[in-house]
Amino acid sequence: MTLWADIRQKALSDIPSLEVVIWDAIRIAIFFALAQFLIRVGVRITRRMLSLHARMDERRRKTLESLFTNVIRYTVYFVLVVEILSLFHVNVSAILASAGIVGVAVGFGAQSLVKDLISGLFILFEDQYGVGDIVQINGFKGMVISIGIRLTRIQAWTGEVQVIPNGQITSVTNYSRTHSTAVIDVTVPYDVDVDLVKSIMQRVLLRLQEERSDVVTGPVQVLGVQDVSNTNLVIRATAVCAPTKNGEIEREAHERIKEELDRALHENEDAQGTTGGELAVE
Amino acid sequence: MTLWADIRQKALSDIPSLEVVIWDAIRIAIFFALAQFLIRVGVRITRRMLSLHARMDERRRKTLESLFTNVIRYTVYFVLVVEILSLFHVNVSAILASAGIVGVAVGFGAQSLVKDLISGLFILFEDQYGVGDIVQINGFKGMVISIGIRLTRIQAWTGEVQVIPNGQITSVTNYSRTHSTAVIDVTVPYDVDVDLVKSIMQRVLLRLQEERSDVVTGPVQVLGVQDVSNTNLVIRATAVCAPTKNGEIEREAHERIKEELDRALHENEDAQGTTGGELAVE
Amino acid sequence: MTLWADIRQKALSDIPSLEVVIWDAIRIAIFFALAQFLIRVGVRITRRMLSLHARMDERRRKTLESLFTNVIRYTVYFVLVVEILSLFHVNVSAILASAGIVGVAVGFGAQSLVKDLISGLFILFEDQYGVGDIVQINGFKGMVISIGIRLTRIQAWTGEVQVIPNGQITSVTNYSRTHSTAVIDVTVPYDVDVDLVKSIMQRVLLRLQEERSDVVTGPVQVLGVQDVSNTNLVIRATAVCAPTKNGEIEREAHERIKEELDRALHENEDAQGTTGGELAVE
Amino acid sequence: MTLWADIRQKALSDIPSLEVVIWDAIRIAIFFALAQFLIRVGVRITRRMLSLHARMDERRRKTLESLFTNVIRYTVYFVLVVEILSLFHVNVSAILASAGIVGVAVGFGAQSLVKDLISGLFILFEDQYGVGDIVQINGFKGMVISIGIRLTRIQAWTGEVQVIPNGQITSVTNYSRTHSTAVIDVTVPYDVDVDLVKSIMQRVLLRLQEERSDVVTGPVQVLGVQDVSNTNLVIRATAVCAPTKNGEIEREAHERIKEELDRALHENEDAQGTTGGELAVE
Amino acid sequence: MTLWADIRQKALSDIPSLEVVIWDAIRIAIFFALAQFLIRVGVRITRRMLSLHARMDERRRKTLESLFTNVIRYTVYFVLVVEILSLFHVNVSAILASAGIVGVAVGFGAQSLVKDLISGLFILFEDQYGVGDIVQINGFKGMVISIGIRLTRIQAWTGEVQVIPNGQITSVTNYSRTHSTAVIDVTVPYDVDVDLVKSIMQRVLLRLQEERSDVVTGPVQVLGVQDVSNTNLVIRATAVCAPTKNGEIEREAHERIKEELDRALHENEDAQGTTGGELAVE
Amino acid sequence: MTLWADIRQKALSDIPSLEVVIWDAIRIAIFFALAQFLIRVGVRITRRMLSLHARMDERRRKTLESLFTNVIRYTVYFVLVVEILSLFHVNVSAILASAGIVGVAVGFGAQSLVKDLISGLFILFEDQYGVGDIVQINGFKGMVISIGIRLTRIQAWTGEVQVIPNGQITSVTNYSRTHSTAVIDVTVPYDVDVDLVKSIMQRVLLRLQEERSDVVTGPVQVLGVQDVSNTNLVIRATAVCAPTKNGEIEREAHERIKEELDRALHENEDAQGTTGGELAVE
Amino acid sequence: MTLWADIRQKALSDIPSLEVVIWDAIRIAIFFALAQFLIRVGVRITRRMLSLHARMDERRRKTLESLFTNVIRYTVYFVLVVEILSLFHVNVSAILASAGIVGVAVGFGAQSLVKDLISGLFILFEDQYGVGDIVQINGFKGMVISIGIRLTRIQAWTGEVQVIPNGQITSVTNYSRTHSTAVIDVTVPYDVDVDLVKSIMQRVLLRLQEERSDVVTGPVQVLGVQDVSNTNLVIRATAVCAPTKNGEIEREAHERIKEELDRALHENEDAQGTTGGELAVE
Repeated sequence: MTLWADIRQKALSDIPSLEVVIWDAIRIAIFFALAQFLIRVGVRITRRMLSLHARMDERRRKTLESLFTNVIRYTVYFVLVVEILSLFHVNVSAILASAGIVGVAVGFGAQSLVKDLISGLFILFEDQYGVGDIVQINGFKGMVISIGIRLTRIQAWTGEVQVIPNGQITSVTNYSRTHSTAVIDVTVPYDVDVDLVKSIMQRVLLRLQEERSDVVTGPVQVLGVQDVSNTNLVIRATAVCAPTKNGEIEREAHERIKEELDRALHENEDAQGTTGGELAVE
Repeated sequence: MTLWADIRQKALSDIPSLEVVIWDAIRIAIFFALAQFLIRVGVRITRRMLSLHARMDERRRKTLESLFTNVIRYTVYFVLVVEILSLFHVNVSAILASAGIVGVAVGFGAQSLVKDLISGLFILFEDQYGVGDIVQINGFKGMVISIGIRLTRIQAWTGEVQVIPNGQITSVTNYSRTHSTAVIDVTVPYDVDVDLVKSIMQRVLLRLQEERSDVVTGPVQVLGVQDVSNTNLVIRATAVCAPTKNGEIEREAHERIKEELDRALHENEDAQGTTGGELAVE
Repeated sequence: MTLWADIRQKALSDIPSLEVVIWDAIRIAIFFALAQFLIRVGVRITRRMLSLHARMDERRRKTLESLFTNVIRYTVYFVLVVEILSLFHVNVSAILASAGIVGVAVGFGAQSLVKDLISGLFILFEDQYGVGDIVQINGFKGMVISIGIRLTRIQAWTGEVQVIPNGQITSVTNYSRTHSTAVIDVTVPYDVDVDLVKSIMQRVLLRLQEERSDVVTGPVQVLGVQDVSNTNLVIRATAVCAPTKNGEIEREAHERIKEELDRALHENEDAQGTTGGELAVE
Repeated sequence: MTLWADIRQKALSDIPSLEVVIWDAIRIAIFFALAQFLIRVGVRITRRMLSLHARMDERRRKTLESLFTNVIRYTVYFVLVVEILSLFHVNVSAILASAGIVGVAVGFGAQSLVKDLISGLFILFEDQYGVGDIVQINGFKGMVISIGIRLTRIQAWTGEVQVIPNGQITSVTNYSRTHSTAVIDVTVPYDVDVDLVKSIMQRVLLRLQEERSDVVTGPVQVLGVQDVSNTNLVIRATAVCAPTKNGEIEREAHERIKEELDRALHENEDAQGTTGGELAVE
Repeated sequence: MTLWADIRQKALSDIPSLEVVIWDAIRIAIFFALAQFLIRVGVRITRRMLSLHARMDERRRKTLESLFTNVIRYTVYFVLVVEILSLFHVNVSAILASAGIVGVAVGFGAQSLVKDLISGLFILFEDQYGVGDIVQINGFKGMVISIGIRLTRIQAWTGEVQVIPNGQITSVTNYSRTHSTAVIDVTVPYDVDVDLVKSIMQRVLLRLQEERSDVVTGPVQVLGVQDVSNTNLVIRATAVCAPTKNGEIEREAHERIKEELDRALHENEDAQGTTGGELAVE
Repeated sequence: MTLWADIRQKALSDIPSLEVVIWDAIRIAIFFALAQFLIRVGVRITRRMLSLHARMDERRRKTLESLFTNVIRYTVYFVLVVEILSLFHVNVSAILASAGIVGVAVGFGAQSLVKDLISGLFILFEDQYGVGDIVQINGFKGMVISIGIRLTRIQAWTGEVQVIPNGQITSVTNYSRTHSTAVIDVTVPYDVDVDLVKSIMQRVLLRLQEERSDVVTGPVQVLGVQDVSNTNLVIRATAVCAPTKNGEIEREAHERIKEELDRALHENEDAQGTTGGELAVE
Repeated sequence: MTLWADIRQKALSDIPSLEVVIWDAIRIAIFFALAQFLIRVGVRITRRMLSLHARMDERRRKTLESLFTNVIRYTVYFVLVVEILSLFHVNVSAILASAGIVGVAVGFGAQSLVKDLISGLFILFEDQYGVGDIVQINGFKGMVISIGIRLTRIQAWTGEVQVIPNGQITSVTNYSRTHSTAVIDVTVPYDVDVDLVKSIMQRVLLRLQEERSDVVTGPVQVLGVQDVSNTNLVIRATAVCAPTKNGEIEREAHERIKEELDRALHENEDAQGTTGGELAVE
C-alpha cells in the first residue's frame, strides 16, 4: 500500500495544478495572436518596400514577396514554438545540441541550397538579365524563359530547355543589351585586287544598311586586310546591328558579296575561269 | 564483516527503491504512447499537404510520403531515447560531446549524402524533369527511368543505365519540353546555282511538313547561305519538330533533298558528271 | 619526522579504502556483463533486420552484418571505457578537449574515409550494380568482381584490376541492365544505290536475328542515310541485343554485310572495279 | 473562484507596473535618439575620409559612401534591437543559438557573397582597372562599362555584355595601361633575299610611324628571321603603339608591306610569276 | 622595512611547503611508472593482434607495429604531461584555448597529413597492391618498390621513381592480379581474303601458345573483322597471358604474323607486288 | 505623482554620479595616452628590425613598415575600444556573439584576402622575385613592375599589365636568375652530310660567342642528331646566354647558320637546286 | 571638495601598493629566467636528436634546427606573455575571444602556409629528393637547387628557376635514383629485312656499351618489332644507363645506327636509291 501511495504522490507532484494549465493556455493563445500580428505587419512592410522598386516587373515582385512572406512566417513560428516548448520546461537547446552531429551535416549539405537562394535574390534585384534576353550561362546559350528564386530556365534556339541553379551562375554573357556586331570576313585569292574587293564590300554593306535600317542600327565599316596567308587574302568588314541580329546580317552579306564578287571577277578576267571558284566568304 | 557491511550499504544506496522503478516504468509507457500519437499526427498532416499538390503523380507522392514519415518517426524516437536516458541520469550530452571527434568526421563525410537528399527533394517538387523525359545530365543523354530521393536513373538509347546521385546534378538539359529544331545543312559545289538549291529545299521540306504533320509541328524555313568555303557552299534550312524528333526529320530530309538535287543537277548539267558527286548533306 | 608524517597523511588521504575498491570492482564487472548483453542483443536485431531484405545475396548480407556488429561493439566499448574512467575520477572530457587540435585534423583527414563507408552502405543497399555486372565508373570500364564496404574492385576485359574507393564513385554506367543496341554504320560511295544497300542490310540483319536469337533479343531496324559527305554515304542500322553483346553482333554484321555488298556490287557493276574497294563498314 | 483568483494573481505578477512601462518607453526613445546620432556621425566621418582619396572619381566615391553608410546604419540598428529585446528579457542569444543550424548553412552559403563585396571594395580602392579600360577577365576581353560593389560589367567589341561577380575575378589583364606592341610577321618563300625584305619592312614601318605618330608612340624595330621552315622564312618586326591600337597598326602594316613586296619582287624577278603569290603577312 | 617584510611574506605564501614538494615528486614517479607499464601492455597487445593477420608480410607488420607503438607512446606521454601540469596548477586548457587561432590553422594544414596516414593504414591492411606489383596510380605506371605509412614509391620501367603521398591515391589499377590479354590487330588491304588472314592468325597464335605455354596461360581467339575503313580491314585476335606479359606476346605475334602473311600473299599474288607492302600489324 | 516619483527614482538610480563620470574620463584619457605610447614603441621596434634586413630595398621596407604599423595601430585601438566599452558595462562579447552568423560568413569570405596578405609578406621577405625580373606566374609571362602586400603586377613584352593577387601565386618561374640557354635546332634533308652541318654550326656559334661575349656568357655546344624523321635530320646545338637573352641569340644564330649552309650546299651540290630549299632552322 | 576626494579615493583604490609592484617585478624576472632556461634546454635536446639522424646533410640539419629553435622560443615567449598579462589581471582570453572573427579568417588564410611548413618538414626528413637530383614536380622538370622549410627551388636545364611552395608538391618524379633506360626506336621501310636491322642495332649498341661503360651501366637489348604501319616497321632496342644519361645515349645510338644502316642498305640495294632515304631513327 505504501508503495502505491508513494508512487501516487510522486506522480501528483509531477502533474501541474489546474490554474497553471489554464494560465498557460491563455498565454499560448496570446502568443499565437501576437505571432499573427507580427506576420501581418512584416508582410505589409515587405510589400510596400518592394512596390518602391519601380523598375521591377510584376512577376519578379510576386516571387520576392512570396519569398519574404515565407521567411517572416517561418521565423515567427520558430520563435513561437521555442517559447511554448520552454513554457513546458522542455530542454530545447539540449535536444538541439544533441542533434549537433546531424546539424553539421545538414548545414553543410544545405549550403548550396542557400547559395542558390542568395544568388537568386541578387539576380532578381540587380537586373543582370531578364525574361526574353538571349544569354550565355556556363557555356549554354539561349533565351531566358523564367527566373526563379532557385532556378533559371534557358531555352536554346533548337528547343531544349536548360535548368540552371542560380548558385551555379558565376558569370553571365548577355547578348540583348545595346547592340551586336556582324563580322564579315571575305577570303579572296592572293592576286585579286584588294581595292576592288574593298569597294564592292563597302557598296554591298551600305545598300544593306539602307534596306535593313531596322536591323543595321549602327555604322558599317570595311576594316581592310585582316590576314594574309600564302594563297589567300582575308578582308574584314563590320556592321553594327540590333542585339542578336548579327547572324542574320552576316548570312545576307555573305550571299550578296559572293554574287557581286563573282560578277565583277568574271567581267574582268573571263579567261581565269579556273580560279574563279576560289573566293570564300566566312 | 564491517568491510562487507560497508560495501553492501554503498551498493544499496546506489539501487533505486521500488516505487521509483514503477513510476519510471509508467512514465516510459506514457512517453511511448505520446510518441506514437505524435508520429500518427505528423504522418497524417504530411499526407494531406502532399495531396494538395495536384500536379504530382502517384509515384512521387509515395516517395515523398515515405521520406517525411521516416524523418518524423526517427526524430520522435530520437527525442524519446534522449528523454528516457536522462530519466536514468545517463549523461547523454557528455557521451555525445566525447564522441565529438567522430561526429565531425561523420558530419563532413555525410554532407554529400545530405546534399543528395535535399537536391532530390527539390527535383521531386520542382518538376525539372519527369520519368520518360529525354534529358542530358553531366554529359550523359538518355531517358529518365526513375527519380528517387537519392538517385536519378537515366537510360541511354543504346541501353546502358546511368545512375546519378541527385547532389551531382548541377544543371539539366531537358529535350522533352516544347519542341525541337531539325537543322538541315546542304553542301553544294561552289558553282551550283544557290536559288535552285534553295527552291528544292523549300519544296522538299514543305512536302515533308505536309506528310509528317504529326512530327513537324512548326514552320519550316530555308535560311540561306550559312557558310562559303573555297570549293563549297553550305545552305541551311530548319524545321520545328515535336520534342526529340529532330534526328528523324533530319535523316529523312537529307535523303529526299539528295534525291531531288541529284535529279535536278543531272538534268541541267548532263555533261558535268565528274562534279555530280560533290554534293553533301549534313 | 613531522615531515614524513605529513607526507604519509597526505598519501593516505589520496588512497581509497578497501570497501570502495571492492565495490568499484563489482560495479566494473556489472558494467562488463551489461555491455556483453547489449552487444548480443544489438547483433541479433541487426541480423534479423538484414534477413528481411529478401533480394540481398549472402555475401552482401555478411559484409553488412560484420559492419553493423563492429559499430555496435565499439560503441558499447567506448561508452564502457568512458563510464569506468569517470568512476576513477579521470577527467576524460578535459583530456579530450585538450586533444581538440589533433581532433580537428583527424576529423578532417578521416572525412573521406567516412564518405567511403557511407557510400559503400548505399551501394550495398541500393543495388546500383552487382558482382558480375559490366559497369563504367570514373572512365574505367570492366566487370565488377567485388563490392566491399570501402572499396569496389573492377576488372577490365584485358585483365587489370581497378580498385576504387566507394566515396569516389559519383556516377555509374551499368551496361548489364536491360539491353544493348548494336549500331551498324555502312559507308558506301556516293553513287551507290541507297535502296539496294538498305535492302541488303535489312536482309543480313534479319537472318542474323534468326540465327542468333539468343543474343539479338529485340527488333532490327535500318534507319536510313545518317550522314552524307562529299564522296560517301553513311547508312545506319540498329539491332537490340542482350546486355553487353552489341560488340559481338556489330562485328558479325560488319563481316556479313561486307560480303553481301561486295557480291552485289560486283554483279551489277563489273566494269567499276576501281571503286569497288571504297565500301566501308564501321 | 479560487481557481480564477489564482490565475488572475499569476497573470498580474507577469504584467509590469505602469512606471516601469513609461520608464522603458523613455529609455527606448533615448536609445533611438542615440542611434540616429551615431549614424550621422559615422556617415560624416566616412564622407570626409573618402574625400581625402584624391584620385577617386565621383562614381566610385558614391558607391563606397552608400556602402559604408548602409553598413553603419544596419550595425547600429542591430545593436539597438538587441538592446531593446534584452530590455524585455527576451532571450535573444538563446533564439540565435537555437537557430545555429540554419546559421551555419546561411553563413556558408553567403560566403561567396561576402567574398564578392570584399573583392569589390579592393577593386574600387586599388585602381586595378577603371571604367573605359580594355581588360581581359577570366578569358573574356572587352571594355569595362561599370564597376559595382558586387559586380563588374564588361562589353565585348561585338556588343555582348559580360557580368562578372567581383569575387570571381582572380587575375586581370589590363590592356589600357602604358602601351601595346604591334607584331608584324612576314612570311616569304625560302629563296627570297632576306635583306631586301628587311629593308622594305624598315622603310614601310618608319613611314607609318611618321604618318601615324599619334598611334605609333614608340620605336619600330625589324627583329630579323623569327622562324625558318622548309619552304618559308618568317621575318618579324615590332612597333610600340598607344594602348589597344596594335591591331589597327598590324592591319595597316600588313597591307602596305604586301604592296611594297609585290612591287619589289615583280621588278626583280619578272620571270618568277608562279612563286610571286607565296608571300604571306600574318 | 615593512615593505620588505610584506614582500617576503607574499613570496613565502607562494612557495609550497617541503612535504608537498616531496609528495608531488613521489606522485610524479608513480605516474611515470604507470605510464611505462601502460605503454608496454599496449605494445604487446598490438604485436599479438598484428601477428594474427596471417597474410601480412614481415615488412608491413613492422611498419604497422612501429606506427601503433608510437601512437600509444605519445598518447600516454601527452596524458602524463597534462596530469603533471595540472598537479602544479598550470592552467593547461587556458593556454591551449588561447592558442586556438594557431590550432585551427595547424589543424587545417595538417589534415592532408592525417589523410595520408589513414590511407596508408588501409593500403597496408587491405592488400590493394603489394611490393613488386605493376600498378598505375594517378596516371603513373610502374612497379611498386615500397609502401610506407605516408608514401608509396613506384619505379617506371625506364628507371625514374615516383613518390606519391598515400592520401593522393584515389584509385589504383593493378596489372599483377589474374591475367593480361594481348590484343593483336592486323590491318590488311581491303581486297585481301579475310578467311585466309584469319586462318594464318589462328595458326600462328596456336603455335605461339604451345611454344610459350609459360606466358600464354589462357585461350587464344581470332575475333574477326574489327574495323572496315575505305581501303583497309582490321582483323583482331586475343590471347590470355600471364599478368603484364601481354606486351611481349603482342610483339612476338606481330612479327610472326607479318612473316606468315608476307609469304602467303607473295605465293598467291606474285603479280601484286606494289600492294604487298600495305599490310600493317598493330 | 507617485508614478512620476517612481520613474524619476528609477531613472536616477541608472544615472552615474559625477565623481564616477570624472574618474572614468580620466581613466579614458590615461588609456589613450597609453595606447599612443604603445603604438610608438611598436612602430620603432618594427623599423629597427626591418632595417637589419640588409638585402631588402627601400620600397619593400616601406611597404612592410606601413603594413606592420597599421597592424599594431589597429590592434591597440581595438583593445582600447573593448576596454572603454566594458568600462561602461556594454556587453561587448554578447553583441559579438550575436553577430556570430555574420562573423562566420565574413570570416570565410575574407580568407582569400588574408591568404593574399600572408603570401605577400612571404614574397616580400623571401626574395622569390624582384621588380624588374622576367617571371612566369600562372601562365602569364612578363616583367614584374610592382610587388605589393596584396597584389603583384606583371607587364608582358607587348605592353598589357596583369594584376595577380599574391594568394593566387602558387608557383613562380623566374627567368632572371643565373642564365638562359639558347637551343638551335637545324633541320636538313636526310641525305645531307651530318658532319658538314655540325662543323658549320660549331664555327658559326663560336664566332657568335666571340662577337657577343656580353650576351653569350657560357659555352656553346653542338649536341648532334636530335631527331631523324623519314626525310629530315634535326641537329641541335646549345649556347649558354645571359638571363632572358636566349631568344635574341637563337634568332641571330638561325640567320647566320642559314647563310652559311646555303653557301656551303650550293658550292658542293650545284646540280641539286631543287632540294636546296629544304633546309629549316627552327 | 568631496567630489575630488571621492575621485582621489577611487583612483587610489585602483593603484597597487608598492610591495605588490616590487613582488610582481621579482616574479616577472623569475619568469624571464625560467623562460631562458627552458629555451636553452629545448634547443640542446633538438640539436642532439637531429645529430642522431646520420644520413642528414649539414644544410638540412641547420634548416631544421633553426625551425625547431624558433618554434620553441616563440612558444615559450607566448606562454610568458600570457602569464605576465594574467598577473596584471588583463583578461587575455576575453580579448582573444572578441578577436574570434579575425581569428577564423586568419586561421583559414594561413592554412596553406601551415601545409607548406608540414610538407617541408617531411621532405627534409624523408629523403624524397635531395639537392642536385633531377626531378619533375607539377610538370616542371629540372635540378633541385635548394630545399627550404617553405619552398623548393628547381632549375630547368635551360636556366630558369621554378619556386614551388612545399605544400603544392603532391607527387614527385625522381630521375636520379637507380638508373635510366634509353629507348631507341628505328623506323625502316616495310620491305627491309628485319633480321638485318636487328643485328645491326645489336652490334652498334654492344659497341656503345663497351666504349661508354661509365654511362651504359646495364644490359642492352633489341626487343624486336614494336609497331607495323602500312609503309614502315618500327624496331625497338633499350639500354640501361646511369640516371638521367638516357638522352645522351639515345642521341649517340641514333647517329651510329643511321650510319651503319645507310652503309648496309647501300651495299645490298644499290639500285634502290630512291627509297634509301626513308629510314628514320626516333
